[in-house]
Amino acid sequence: MSQSNENVQQIQHHRDAIDEIDKQLVALLNQRQTHAMAIRSLKPAANMGLFDARREEEIIERAQQYNEGPLYSDNVREIFTAILKVSKEVPE
Amino acid sequence: MSQSNENVQQIQHHRDAIDEIDKQLVALLNQRQTHAMAIRSLKPAANMGLFDARREEEIIERAQQYNEGPLYSDNVREIFTAILKVSKEVPE
Repeated sequence: MSQSNENVQQIQHHRDAIDEIDKQLVALLNQRQTHAMAIRSLKPAANMGLFDARREEEIIERAQQYNEGPLYSDNVREIFTAILKVSKEVPE
Repeated sequence: MSQSNENVQQIQHHRDAIDEIDKQLVALLNQRQTHAMAIRSLKPAANMGLFDARREEEIIERAQQYNEGPLYSDNVREIFTAILKVSKEVPE
């Protein structure tokens, strides 16, 4: 097999792995959203405001602490900023 | 225990669950990045261009197919657009 064909096969292997990871990511993101919506519905009776910028910053910083790379800390911030933005947009 | 205190406790339970999910998300995102970087390094010898807009669209559409909610399809697109953007930014 040529080097080129071998590389194409290896790329396919990594793409299959990414596909499996993406499936897990979507499942986790939905679990996360379910908890976020439960929190949202509990907040008024707990006398808590719906939006808490400090809590968002805590979430991002904690995610950055979990990060062992190869993603950079700023990459983790960017992805979690998108996750948190989207989370607030989903209606109950 | 007052209703307010009970809600605060329930919120904490959901926040703990989100924290655990975020830990798993960071781990999966880094696994994903490792595969993406391996693909990047394999592409030149496979005579493949580094950027493939069609492949990116396929990834997003597949993630949307995995989605069972409560996230909306557009939410999944937004999050994965951020993941793919960041993925390209990480140097080798």
